Amino acid sequence: MTIETIPGLLAQEAHELVARLYPICRSITGEGVRQTLQIVREIIPLTVHEIPTGTPIFDWTVPREWNIREASIRNSAGEKIIDFRDCNLHVVNYSAPVKARVPLKTLKEHAFTLPNHPHWIPYRTSYYKEDWGFCLSDAQLQSLPEGDYDVLIDSAFKDGHLTYGEYVVNGSTEEEVLISTHVCHPSLANDNLAGIAASALMARTLGQMSLKYSYRFLFIPATVGSITWLSRNESRASRVRHGLVLACFGDGGKVNYKKSRRARAEIDRAVIKVLEDAGEPYEALDFSPYGYDERQFCSPGFDLPVGCFMRTPHGQFPEYHTSADNLDFVRPEFIGDSIKKCMSVFELLEHNETYLNLNPKCEPQLGRRGLYSAIGGHTDGKIRELAMLWVLNLSDGTNSLLDIAERADLPFSLIHDAARSLRDHDLLKERPPVKL
Amino acid sequence: MTIETIPGLLAQEAHELVARLYPICRSITGEGVRQTLQIVREIIPLTVHEIPTGTPIFDWTVPREWNIREASIRNSAGEKIIDFRDCNLHVVNYSAPVKARVPLKTLKEHAFTLPNHPHWIPYRTSYYKEDWGFCLSDAQLQSLPEGDYDVLIDSAFKDGHLTYGEYVVNGSTEEEVLISTHVCHPSLANDNLAGIAASALMARTLGQMSLKYSYRFLFIPATVGSITWLSRNESRASRVRHGLVLACFGDGGKVNYKKSRRARAEIDRAVIKVLEDAGEPYEALDFSPYGYDERQFCSPGFDLPVGCFMRTPHGQFPEYHTSADNLDFVRPEFIGDSIKKCMSVFELLEHNETYLNLNPKCEPQLGRRGLYSAIGGHTDGKIRELAMLWVLNLSDGTNSLLDIAERADLPFSLIHDAARSLRDHDLLKERPPVKL
Amino acid sequence: MTIETIPGLLAQEAHELVARLYPICRSITGEGVRQTLQIVREIIPLTVHEIPTGTPIFDWTVPREWNIREASIRNSAGEKIIDFRDCNLHVVNYSAPVKARVPLKTLKEHAFTLPNHPHWIPYRTSYYKEDWGFCLSDAQLQSLPEGDYDVLIDSAFKDGHLTYGEYVVNGSTEEEVLISTHVCHPSLANDNLAGIAASALMARTLGQMSLKYSYRFLFIPATVGSITWLSRNESRASRVRHGLVLACFGDGGKVNYKKSRRARAEIDRAVIKVLEDAGEPYEALDFSPYGYDERQFCSPGFDLPVGCFMRTPHGQFPEYHTSADNLDFVRPEFIGDSIKKCMSVFELLEHNETYLNLNPKCEPQLGRRGLYSAIGGHTDGKIRELAMLWVLNLSDGTNSLLDIAERADLPFSLIHDAARSLRDHDLLKERPPVKL
Repeated sequence: MTIETIPGLLAQEAHELVARLYPICRSITGEGVRQTLQIVREIIPLTVHEIPTGTPIFDWTVPREWNIREASIRNSAGEKIIDFRDCNLHVVNYSAPVKARVPLKTLKEHAFTLPNHPHWIPYRTSYYKEDWGFCLSDAQLQSLPEGDYDVLIDSAFKDGHLTYGEYVVNGSTEEEVLISTHVCHPSLANDNLAGIAASALMARTLGQMSLKYSYRFLFIPATVGSITWLSRNESRASRVRHGLVLACFGDGGKVNYKKSRRARAEIDRAVIKVLEDAGEPYEALDFSPYGYDERQFCSPGFDLPVGCFMRTPHGQFPEYHTSADNLDFVRPEFIGDSIKKCMSVFELLEHNETYLNLNPKCEPQLGRRGLYSAIGGHTDGKIRELAMLWVLNLSDGTNSLLDIAERADLPFSLIHDAARSLRDHDLLKERPPVKL
Repeated sequence: MTIETIPGLLAQEAHELVARLYPICRSITGEGVRQTLQIVREIIPLTVHEIPTGTPIFDWTVPREWNIREASIRNSAGEKIIDFRDCNLHVVNYSAPVKARVPLKTLKEHAFTLPNHPHWIPYRTSYYKEDWGFCLSDAQLQSLPEGDYDVLIDSAFKDGHLTYGEYVVNGSTEEEVLISTHVCHPSLANDNLAGIAASALMARTLGQMSLKYSYRFLFIPATVGSITWLSRNESRASRVRHGLVLACFGDGGKVNYKKSRRARAEIDRAVIKVLEDAGEPYEALDFSPYGYDERQFCSPGFDLPVGCFMRTPHGQFPEYHTSADNLDFVRPEFIGDSIKKCMSVFELLEHNETYLNLNPKCEPQLGRRGLYSAIGGHTDGKIRELAMLWVLNLSDGTNSLLDIAERADLPFSLIHDAARSLRDHDLLKERPPVKL
Repeated sequence: MTIETIPGLLAQEAHELVARLYPICRSITGEGVRQTLQIVREIIPLTVHEIPTGTPIFDWTVPREWNIREASIRNSAGEKIIDFRDCNLHVVNYSAPVKARVPLKTLKEHAFTLPNHPHWIPYRTSYYKEDWGFCLSDAQLQSLPEGDYDVLIDSAFKDGHLTYGEYVVNGSTEEEVLISTHVCHPSLANDNLAGIAASALMARTLGQMSLKYSYRFLFIPATVGSITWLSRNESRASRVRHGLVLACFGDGGKVNYKKSRRARAEIDRAVIKVLEDAGEPYEALDFSPYGYDERQFCSPGFDLPVGCFMRTPHGQFPEYHTSADNLDFVRPEFIGDSIKKCMSVFELLEHNETYLNLNPKCEPQLGRRGLYSAIGGHTDGKIRELAMLWVLNLSDGTNSLLDIAERADLPFSLIHDAARSLRDHDLLKERPPVKL
């Protein structure tokens, strides 16, 4: 496997997919999620799971399904001044139905705006309190004259299902890399359509490769989705050797990697090494129990080695949870950069073998095997030689290639190439993986 | 127990107690210590121990008792120019008796002054070399005309006792918090009357509370006192789970906490967390075997987890061991601040439970229990929520609340409150303390 | 043992020895090494080992022996313009023989110069590719007119021996300190005649002392020499408790100590403590598998605690591997400083006992043993007292004097002197060394 096999066009394809998913009104349950997963199924043969309302999932139960047909506000002249079809953020997500004529004062009690960004529409939810509400620009709200307004939200709660998608790329072992991304947000491009699109395309790409690990992709509503998956896969969770939650995948900020609860898990070190080797600014954040679904994967009863790969973290860009998180805010080159780095992480994990030096007493004679560069200069040769010496010196069975790359402070790819050369000259052999 | 129960008047009461103890001439043995302990007994029912001269105490023996009735220097006109009754620092502590007429030259050989602080009187001792001596201001010494002087020190060494006080506040367990303070210095307010007064008042306050730990307060002469106590309580020493030596408790400097020999004992981390949470400047000093009685408690044969709580450390303020360490130098607000912080340390130790998350698989649903703040804003709610999430995430049986507060970088009180809320909602239970 | 016993004249003697060794043309095998070892034998009774060509040494075999009688370049007028007798760097070390008339163009293909240092002659080797070549100053090469040149290299490869020297100073135990230095470079003073001379003189000095450790000195050709020694002493290698490779021992730069692969071995901490205590600039470098013979000693099959003591590291001074690494470049005072510091390291290792405090419960009474300085002042006394308190406090059987000196942040010699005083007063006893 090599990330060179990722077509340069993937970034563009991802952005087009984001654009296709953008208009759909998703929520934690309902038709929006189903439509989204149907589009993802055009790319990968996703299994779609439907879990009935009321199913117990640890301390929770699967909620009722929420769907919405239309919503609007009309002024006293009968003109539609807000239409859900224009922008699905206009309705508070999970809003109760309403059909009423209300004075401006009452409308304002159910209206959310962003006074600091008067032309943006906020995204609000009301999952845990049954109420109705509209979101609109502050400029529009301020311009509304006194009078009565006809508000309509044609939504419905019903016993139905929670829907999520799952796709496994089988590797040669049952050990798994888990990639989880949330599918419950409506028209918000960075949070999280970029993550959905990139996951789908990375899954398709990995599916064409020969892999050591199995890669399990989850497309799930946040919180209840991961809780549902964990409750249905309790016995399988221990197969997860590494994992990433993908979110905020396409904005122009630097990559922020939030470490797993374990802090020094292989996935944590792998991501940080890839980001370090890339030579671009990045941030490694300590784990905290607030954020995306890593909260559930890292709960103490599971404590899976799952980190969160983001560009700018949630809440730290002004466009977060507003109508400004749109198709212009995420760019193909940023999604592409995120994909490239995640694929490099997978490549590192695939290649992170532990080798045994077959000539551990003194250095083997590299010269007679043609592994030494000729007399003098060329720096590339010197650094390759140094990488070989590091691999030989540390391959005593206790150090993986990642351990070696970290201690040598050399790029992982260089260490890996050196190990391959040495193995091809019968100077190293792979240590069979230790079962934990 | 809560430090809010400490009356604000405690600081003032402490300073008044310092003022009452100030005139007494204390030494490592003798009547001064007895008078001091009698005054402390008005506050707490101290047990006063009397250990006979000559009693072996490890490598030492209890010394002879020293007492002094009067002392003076008269000039050739018969005028008293130095009188012990004016200031008990005038006599070198543990000075041999003398009654003689001496020329100025001889007097000067037995006189100690502070040329850099010409109006201050130094404090000097001669415990280990039998000699006589006076301390006076350099200005006075320089002004003395040639001539003969009548020197009188009416002191006496005799077989008697070493005296110390002990008071235990019983908690629900036999595990002890040791608080030790030295009572051997004469009229020096910061070193150590502030410590004595604060210890007595904290002991009285703790005595009114329901406690997990037993609190043992020692009022002892420095060095020989702690050696005596340890030699008489060798088998009981292992009950000491945490300990503090209190000294220099009332000056205006920032708090300096000197860590125990173990460096990362719970007491060390507790004090540092309290000081950190207070948001005021402080210093955490590494252990060294020079200082107060922590030297003995941390000797390798005991290695008790005992640190030293000071404001400005000994020798680091100019007034140290001089007549300028007086009732103006220690202020009620500084003693009060020291008391408040020490009481917070005890509170932290009392509350530093280890809990078990009863729903360790995924987060429990805080919302339906009313533990989630309502939609939007208020920051207090958010931080309380975060504290609950941290407690849930780390309560796997290996982390105490202090461990959690340190990792979360949140105030201990916030973490403790969160744990109480969660426990009250049956989401946590206390892990029974592990016996070491 | 004390480094005070090192005569100040040793530095001068070392430089004179460098001067005597300087003209000899050494290589990894051959007469040059033999002549060098004969001169060293005038100082210490070295055992000279001769290992036949073709002997298997781990992954290697002992190479053919190379010797050279003469070499020159004559111009078309028959004038000698390059003569090996003037400077043995003129011939590429391990050059194949040649006798031919060649045009300037061909000569240039076999000529090495340093364009950046036009008056210096480079040092080049061709151990692993059979070829002939000359090294000369760039100025001279540029001045050569077109025409034919007679090149002569009267060298020969033959089955012979690899030669190395070994000398052991026996201590009271079989545990060894290994000191290894390379003898394969021709007229290069800092790399490595200074190391050879200093090793010989330190060996002679240690031979006059009563020692705990045995000290094994190796004078070996780089790489093949250490591989040969290790292959012949495989079973003995585990006796090496500490080791140093000495190189670049006499230039004016600060000391650079390269740590062993173990990174925190006693030798690593000992060297760093000595350099720290000296109060002069130094650098502690992390281990890397590139450098001198520590590469072999630290190969994973041996992993011996062997570091490398250098002044300016190889490749980091412009004179490195050129004719400018001459008798002016190494100075007696720098060699003397290196010797002094290495001898201090040996002294530290000899004295790094672990003691047991015989009065572990509370401090012993130092005063009645005369170990406390009198009343007041003198700083020397205070610091000696502090050193005694540290030794007593930490001598619980788990801390060596080096551990104590590191934690106390006091000079090792002060800690050692304190321990001696305490032992002489029956307050400490040596813990018998634990066999590993």
